[in-house]
Amino acid sequence: MRLVNMDCYGATPVREEVLQAMLPYFREHFGNPSSIHSLGEEPLKAITQSRERVAALIGAAKPEEIYFTSCGTEANNWALKGTAWKNQARGRHVIISSVEHFSVLYVTNTLEGWGFEVTRLPVDRHGRVDPDEVRRAIRKDTILVSIMHSTPEVGTLQPIGEIGKIAREAGVVLHTDAVGSVGNIPVDVQALGVDLLSCASDQFHGPRGAGALYMKRGTPTQRFLDGGAQEDGRRGGTENVAAIVGMGLAAEIAGRQMDVEMAHRRAMADVLREELSQRIDHLHWNGHPSERLPGI
Amino acid sequence: MRLVNMDCYGATPVREEVLQAMLPYFREHFGNPSSIHSLGEEPLKAITQSRERVAALIGAAKPEEIYFTSCGTEANNWALKGTAWKNQARGRHVIISSVEHFSVLYVTNTLEGWGFEVTRLPVDRHGRVDPDEVRRAIRKDTILVSIMHSTPEVGTLQPIGEIGKIAREAGVVLHTDAVGSVGNIPVDVQALGVDLLSCASDQFHGPRGAGALYMKRGTPTQRFLDGGAQEDGRRGGTENVAAIVGMGLAAEIAGRQMDVEMAHRRAMADVLREELSQRIDHLHWNGHPSERLPGI
Repeated sequence: MRLVNMDCYGATPVREEVLQAMLPYFREHFGNPSSIHSLGEEPLKAITQSRERVAALIGAAKPEEIYFTSCGTEANNWALKGTAWKNQARGRHVIISSVEHFSVLYVTNTLEGWGFEVTRLPVDRHGRVDPDEVRRAIRKDTILVSIMHSTPEVGTLQPIGEIGKIAREAGVVLHTDAVGSVGNIPVDVQALGVDLLSCASDQFHGPRGAGALYMKRGTPTQRFLDGGAQEDGRRGGTENVAAIVGMGLAAEIAGRQMDVEMAHRRAMADVLREELSQRIDHLHWNGHPSERLPGI
Repeated sequence: MRLVNMDCYGATPVREEVLQAMLPYFREHFGNPSSIHSLGEEPLKAITQSRERVAALIGAAKPEEIYFTSCGTEANNWALKGTAWKNQARGRHVIISSVEHFSVLYVTNTLEGWGFEVTRLPVDRHGRVDPDEVRRAIRKDTILVSIMHSTPEVGTLQPIGEIGKIAREAGVVLHTDAVGSVGNIPVDVQALGVDLLSCASDQFHGPRGAGALYMKRGTPTQRFLDGGAQEDGRRGGTENVAAIVGMGLAAEIAGRQMDVEMAHRRAMADVLREELSQRIDHLHWNGHPSERLPGI
């Protein structure tokens, strides 16, 4: 029996060529990119290239809008807590959907403990948030809307573009947890109109240990991980160079092969769907019929 | 010319055998340790072994007192912010030394922004904190003392054991940033009497992407990274299994070879010190004459 991993949204193996590209950064290029001596030069160059690659994958205007984190969960914590802290004098109301990942849902519990108010919007039978509900939920003291880009459990895509217009008109920061989408389907931060976006390397055959927070220039969000002056002074901690190199190459490959990969996943899912339907009566398919991730 | 890296406290290369032990966790054992299916089994076993190895290196009573993080900076942020948030109803005063790492110093700036008061104790000419100063600085509303175990810049060891007694008598949580010490010199959390201790894999020839926070059972500290139920529900985010495996093996090797390594570093430092002294007049040596890290 050949084991087929159908839980790709829980973990993907690292591509062999990605792993090979990482190895020198464990061995000879182990230096600290913030070091003033020569051992830090090559790691710094490699991080810059990865930043460009991730920026290209998500359509960021500038590579400097990409901040590397240790994972998607850290990016989500940063986006929500950093924006809440930074804007609390202006307002203490946050809007999310009721189907967010734990790393958004539980952060909002923490925010409530700090005196913030949280509105959790319901979803329709396909798991979608209605943009009009977002519009109605926005108040004068709303500082942040956070709606995930796609729902890993059922694969439904959220109408982030429409929500982006509403948030922009209201002058509210919009974050999207795109961990399940980036690298798997086209994501363009400028077309979506988001201010903050989270993604993670291990969702597109890169290694764990690297994620990123896209932060549009000028977004009012403060530091989450205090420390050294890494990441333009916005995230402390010596950079995990090997993981960042891996994320960069995986991003480059994911972008290049996306069309082929999407077609392949769609075909696999169709076969599975058809075979299951033939064998099991009264099967109900969750998720949106068309606005969904391929392969779920 | 052979290049000798004398900035070992900024970065160390990963041991080849550590890297080899990590590789299967990028390739075949890429599963999510929290998955209910079989791909998660091997990673979970590997994490448990690493937890035991790190616990053994620092003398923790139970492996379950070790919580893996992405780096030392995250461990320090967690220790300080998590303890501050958890105990703020009881008091809002924190004590640190004036020579802490950025990831402690800057966290206390953030704490001040949240309304906490911070006392920063001076050090003597050897870079040491006087335990009596700690005793005098403790107030009724003091909830946390955080003093680093060793100062990377000059290598001076702090009198954590004595400070531990004082903190215990006063019922104040004691944290020590031991990132520069763990894996390089003997560290025993029970002998020191600390409640929280930070360490990082890349300080003892393990990979970046893994650090740990030792949390003595019952220490009142809340979660820093909200998310899934990983790390006994205390730290969200899919575990970076490869890095944790690397940290575990590096910890085991560091413990086993510590005596030999320390003697080697002392010898290297003595040679350097002697040669420099012969060539340069009026050289002044920073740091404590005996209570210091070997090799600085």
